[in-house]
Amino acid sequence: MKALCFDGQLSLREIPTPRPARGEALIRVILAGICGTDRQILKGYSGFRGVPGHELVGQVVGCEAGEWVGKRVVGEINVTCGSCKRCLSGMKRHCANRTVLGIIRHQGAFAEFVTLPVANLHEVPADIPDEVAVFTEPVAAAAEILEQIPVPVGSPVAVLGAGRLGLLVAQVLCHAGAAVTVVGRSAWKLDAARSLGLQAAFANENSLRQRSFPLVVEATSSPQGLEAALRLAEPRGTVVMKSTFHEPAHFDTAKLVVDEITLLGSRCGNFQTALDLLKTGAIQVRPLISKVFPLAAALQAFEYLNSSPCLKVLLSNRAGT
Amino acid sequence: MKALCFDGQLSLREIPTPRPARGEALIRVILAGICGTDRQILKGYSGFRGVPGHELVGQVVGCEAGEWVGKRVVGEINVTCGSCKRCLSGMKRHCANRTVLGIIRHQGAFAEFVTLPVANLHEVPADIPDEVAVFTEPVAAAAEILEQIPVPVGSPVAVLGAGRLGLLVAQVLCHAGAAVTVVGRSAWKLDAARSLGLQAAFANENSLRQRSFPLVVEATSSPQGLEAALRLAEPRGTVVMKSTFHEPAHFDTAKLVVDEITLLGSRCGNFQTALDLLKTGAIQVRPLISKVFPLAAALQAFEYLNSSPCLKVLLSNRAGT
Repeated sequence: MKALCFDGQLSLREIPTPRPARGEALIRVILAGICGTDRQILKGYSGFRGVPGHELVGQVVGCEAGEWVGKRVVGEINVTCGSCKRCLSGMKRHCANRTVLGIIRHQGAFAEFVTLPVANLHEVPADIPDEVAVFTEPVAAAAEILEQIPVPVGSPVAVLGAGRLGLLVAQVLCHAGAAVTVVGRSAWKLDAARSLGLQAAFANENSLRQRSFPLVVEATSSPQGLEAALRLAEPRGTVVMKSTFHEPAHFDTAKLVVDEITLLGSRCGNFQTALDLLKTGAIQVRPLISKVFPLAAALQAFEYLNSSPCLKVLLSNRAGT
Repeated sequence: MKALCFDGQLSLREIPTPRPARGEALIRVILAGICGTDRQILKGYSGFRGVPGHELVGQVVGCEAGEWVGKRVVGEINVTCGSCKRCLSGMKRHCANRTVLGIIRHQGAFAEFVTLPVANLHEVPADIPDEVAVFTEPVAAAAEILEQIPVPVGSPVAVLGAGRLGLLVAQVLCHAGAAVTVVGRSAWKLDAARSLGLQAAFANENSLRQRSFPLVVEATSSPQGLEAALRLAEPRGTVVMKSTFHEPAHFDTAKLVVDEITLLGSRCGNFQTALDLLKTGAIQVRPLISKVFPLAAALQAFEYLNSSPCLKVLLSNRAGT
């Protein structure tokens, strides 16, 4: 099969189609999304080697459990052991022995096919099109915040970063009733935020009062984002950190201690919650799609991401793309 | 009066005795403790200029409210406006207009006299001697953790740093029922921890399993402490950060995000709680006193702190010290 491989360099190659192990399904990838984490992997994040890609919608083409064959699915990215302390205590996504699709020792979705355990699969309802379903993983990650902390209706929230992730987080929190302001550094991204019905402000705007937000979400994908987030958080406020990047961040911890800020790391979320959100139509994802490349042009897709002002770039295995 | 002054350099000087403003008391300092924060102030932390020192026990020698005169007191270090949003919402210690004794625009306790608002004072019960009462501020800071998060009885806690602050935090959490391990890098400090009845382990000991503590308290006073604390915290665990230092810390935020760690800044605490704890005798502070210097030898006290293995160093205005 065709696959985008990373071994320190990216290259498009023919590699053997993976064989599903017991309990796994073989999935033909329909669409896969390129995420900030994928770009960090190319810088060395997680030390991953192999096929990256963890956002996908696909169709089951092979599975012992025959009822899955032919179904359109999205797949949870953490492949867990099911028997460690964390799996047994309901913290499966933190399984000590997990592999993670396209991130930790599990071949990812920038390919024609992937394998995933059947237990990881969610059937996509017929009324959610491929272009929407492919956002299930990042929408789940955005919704994870609501499972970690209470976000009271009407409470002011600053979302730092008007990129792919920030615009999803902002929409999810807005849908939950928070008074969200998207904070960014790029005029066209802030315009994108406004066209989604979100309030938006320049990072250096005077109207943004320092120490005024009870909740700040850091979604900048930049090591500098944390400092900026801490400046906006009010004393005893919370900063949720969503960005993962390869470089260490450095910041003035005295601000965190003196203002008694809670800094909360936040990663993957519940896929069913995300599918339910996408089904309502409350989260608009199509306006975030900047371009769709065929898998065969995956290298160009990454070049495009590096060189163009854009949001989400998808790789497609559909005929005609 | 005699006072230790910092203007970029430390010097012992004669300066005017402060005059208490309306609502304030003039306090003769009996004993003052040197804290890690004081040493950070000498490196530039908080940009403070003037008389440092915020841990004290003293005697009221002048006050409009005559009933306070002659009383032995400790004093809350945050001098608040009483009228801002935070003061009015019960977050006085986060007052937007506060000064802080010996840290932010308020002359501190390394002097013969200080002034503090009467509202900040707590009378010291007769059965708490001066050498114990002078620990009220750091014990309050240690106990603040219990006001911020639940620490279930029997739950494993690692306290990183076996210095002045770490040994107080460890004792306070141990008294609250936690299963505390003090983690340090210095054999004699770990021995000090053990002699206080605490479990102690070398930072590099194999018995210290990474990702195994639901709660880690960072009390190392070092920018490297945070990385070490994050390594010990289990997924979805909490790291409480108590150290303040002048340099920025840098750390791998991916660990925080991937393991969904809560990093919680923690500063000043409730003085009455601390006095109650000290009264029970459950927190042993006398073994932490390495040396008492007369105020006139304050410069030597700082030299001693910089050059000798020691824990708490006190400055005294008592006759004969």
